[in-house]
Amino acid sequence: MIHPVILCGGSGTRLWPASRKAYPKQFAPLISEQSLYQMALQRLTGEGFAAPLVMTGDDFRFMASEQAAEMGLSDARIVIEPAARDTAPAILTAALLLKDTPDAMMLIAPSDHVIGDVPAFLKAIEAAKTASETGALVTFGITPDRAETGYGYLELPQIPDGPQAVNLNSFREKPDAETAQQMLDAGNYLWNAGIFLFRVADIIAAFETHAPDLVGPCQGAIDAGAEDLNFFRLGADDYARAAAISFDYAIMEKATSVMAVPLSCAWSDLGSWDALWQTQNPDENGLVAIGAVTALECTNSYLRSEEDTLQLVGLGLDNIVAVAMRDAVLVADKSRSQDVKAIVGALRAQKVAQADDYPRFYRPWGWYETLCLDSRFQVKRIMVKPGGVLSLQSHYHRSEHWIVVSGTAEVTIDEKVKLVTENEGVYIPLGAVHRMANPGRLPMYLIEVQTGSYLGEDDIVRYEDIYDRS
Amino acid sequence: MIHPVILCGGSGTRLWPASRKAYPKQFAPLISEQSLYQMALQRLTGEGFAAPLVMTGDDFRFMASEQAAEMGLSDARIVIEPAARDTAPAILTAALLLKDTPDAMMLIAPSDHVIGDVPAFLKAIEAAKTASETGALVTFGITPDRAETGYGYLELPQIPDGPQAVNLNSFREKPDAETAQQMLDAGNYLWNAGIFLFRVADIIAAFETHAPDLVGPCQGAIDAGAEDLNFFRLGADDYARAAAISFDYAIMEKATSVMAVPLSCAWSDLGSWDALWQTQNPDENGLVAIGAVTALECTNSYLRSEEDTLQLVGLGLDNIVAVAMRDAVLVADKSRSQDVKAIVGALRAQKVAQADDYPRFYRPWGWYETLCLDSRFQVKRIMVKPGGVLSLQSHYHRSEHWIVVSGTAEVTIDEKVKLVTENEGVYIPLGAVHRMANPGRLPMYLIEVQTGSYLGEDDIVRYEDIYDRS
Repeated sequence: MIHPVILCGGSGTRLWPASRKAYPKQFAPLISEQSLYQMALQRLTGEGFAAPLVMTGDDFRFMASEQAAEMGLSDARIVIEPAARDTAPAILTAALLLKDTPDAMMLIAPSDHVIGDVPAFLKAIEAAKTASETGALVTFGITPDRAETGYGYLELPQIPDGPQAVNLNSFREKPDAETAQQMLDAGNYLWNAGIFLFRVADIIAAFETHAPDLVGPCQGAIDAGAEDLNFFRLGADDYARAAAISFDYAIMEKATSVMAVPLSCAWSDLGSWDALWQTQNPDENGLVAIGAVTALECTNSYLRSEEDTLQLVGLGLDNIVAVAMRDAVLVADKSRSQDVKAIVGALRAQKVAQADDYPRFYRPWGWYETLCLDSRFQVKRIMVKPGGVLSLQSHYHRSEHWIVVSGTAEVTIDEKVKLVTENEGVYIPLGAVHRMANPGRLPMYLIEVQTGSYLGEDDIVRYEDIYDRS
Repeated sequence: MIHPVILCGGSGTRLWPASRKAYPKQFAPLISEQSLYQMALQRLTGEGFAAPLVMTGDDFRFMASEQAAEMGLSDARIVIEPAARDTAPAILTAALLLKDTPDAMMLIAPSDHVIGDVPAFLKAIEAAKTASETGALVTFGITPDRAETGYGYLELPQIPDGPQAVNLNSFREKPDAETAQQMLDAGNYLWNAGIFLFRVADIIAAFETHAPDLVGPCQGAIDAGAEDLNFFRLGADDYARAAAISFDYAIMEKATSVMAVPLSCAWSDLGSWDALWQTQNPDENGLVAIGAVTALECTNSYLRSEEDTLQLVGLGLDNIVAVAMRDAVLVADKSRSQDVKAIVGALRAQKVAQADDYPRFYRPWGWYETLCLDSRFQVKRIMVKPGGVLSLQSHYHRSEHWIVVSGTAEVTIDEKVKLVTENEGVYIPLGAVHRMANPGRLPMYLIEVQTGSYLGEDDIVRYEDIYDRS
């Protein structure tokens, strides 16, 4: 059995505005109806795989759990990293959680990459497994098809035909354009994909040898950890003591028994809009158009609308990325894709909410969107999942009208509980203690109209919350 | 007294998406808080000017009337052209409406141009008046500052110093780039701005001489016309018989007593996004940023967001126009500005509503916007002006919840009439005959939540309408 360990703690900003701190790219349906995280889970589900271990952050625990549940993977174990400490502590912690099965295999996989040819990936895993049974730490290398400067490289003595583990000469940092071309021409380099396979005992031993200072904090974080609903929350104080360091740097570049398996599988890290453009099949003019897009005489461009009701029109564009969302629009020179990150910094500096907030706010009970915000009123669209229960709460500064537009709500107002169904409305007076829940088997949709002198999310007094939110 | 005649019937598509058939550019606050039409009215109000005569289309009558009223010009006379017949019939009709004062002056002005230096414009009008008192038909010519191919030109023997009427050699059609440069270098050419001054009797005589076939239809349309609320609606059958022909072509290029007054007043016809870019003061990098815009390393570009809540970000752009609205985003090569018109055609061919519809629907009683549209429900934000009254109506397929969020509504449901004030809601059952009005002195804002199996605007049975809409 192989234990998939899905690294799901990133908050990539290079795909802004579709990826934001509040809704990072691995959870977004960027290239299919499934999110990248769901596609990663899907690949590593089935015969030969144990239930996945998902390493994620506190902010993302409900998304990680809900999206796994949507795929029928309710046995996924969600581990909450109290702080982002890069990949080495996450991988070591996963290994320590599995240490009772020292001979078991762990497959480390990022949650935000795309793998076009899954059978090829699975064959490569088989080859890696054979090698790791001899104690090797195996990394997977992607056969390069261009002189890419955005990835690290693996140097091999030579690339084998087909999936087969070979010894590794060295790791190479992201190269400049000239070096990248030289490596492509040399033919014995692979892209470092950040996917690894090894036995639990072997990787723990490697950490004890090459990064012994991480072992105490990570084991301590497990010992101090606690089950929290269906999550396992690591101890924050211990985990904070672990150095933030990448797994390549801490272990792979130092370990001696490292092997690599080549992988030709239409892989991408989707690390920029340019990478999405490459992945999403440009037409003969180099155009990719996703969603409600009209393009007139556009070439080598990526045009994407995230809303059916938002028509994006390109005219005479070349080498442009345009991504339209209801609260934010990015228009960039495609060759500047790597600099999209700088936008987020600029927006944060201006205190623009769109830097980090996503227009749909995901909560453990479902989600909400603001449809209209004025100084004295706000209109929200709210979805409550079957079984979802909002906290019991009251407000000092606003009253609320709720109108159920689909499904059935169970509404508590002060002492009274009643069912409110499609096309019915209720009024929540200012100060009333209230709660909304969905007792049904279908999602419940509701329009909330707030009126009052202050409409901030922080005007909330919480009395009870089934999700243990503070 | 000069009678301003404001030509307000256009439905310019080259500024899509900010200008659409349902809300053409003259009514949009494109370069200030006032619309272009309001700015045109403002320039021609005050000492020496009679109340304006506004020539507009049926679809725009309420906008023309309301925007004039907002400026305190409730004495503006709004004349409805039942069909668009170009400028010659509109100008002749205006003259015939004024024929009881044959010696009065008429100043013909487009409603969608910008004039930066109004005092210079008024001085030019003074000079033109002196000339027209001798019977001349006077046109105004803009001193060119570039070899523009988008305008027609006026050839003069030579350009006088300062505002002074001189005889005209000839009219020139829009030139190619080389000819435009030659004319600029020659120094005796002006741009044809479509602004004219003459006496009522003189222009009627000119029509009788050079375009006699127009006189019968236009006089007939007046005779068959009717007062309609505070509008004057021309007879449709007669007006349809008038040839659609431009005033330049019908009269000015044929008349003998034509003079021109040069005008240096930072004029633009705002005929394209490129023209807006030129008008709105590009910074030292050639960047214009309007609204919620963040630009990183952008040059020679026009970035405009029409919503506070829609953040438009440009990165590394050169020579790009990007205009973001809540329902549509344009991204275009700036040098292709003249081709924006083609977008509207492409969208119409795809039956995309955004081709012609504006996200805010203007009505005589106020406006509404769709905040959210799903298959089974719709949420609208509605504004009713003080004194505004919606038609008495019922629906076959939907019921409605109304929640007043600002102001007071008078709500009729079947036989009952009641006042509904801020933070109160009412329910309109399917089939109920209902009406909403604003009896107050402030605008009334209301959120409407519709639920039903069909939500089209055509599910409406109208019983009474104070605005005489069919």
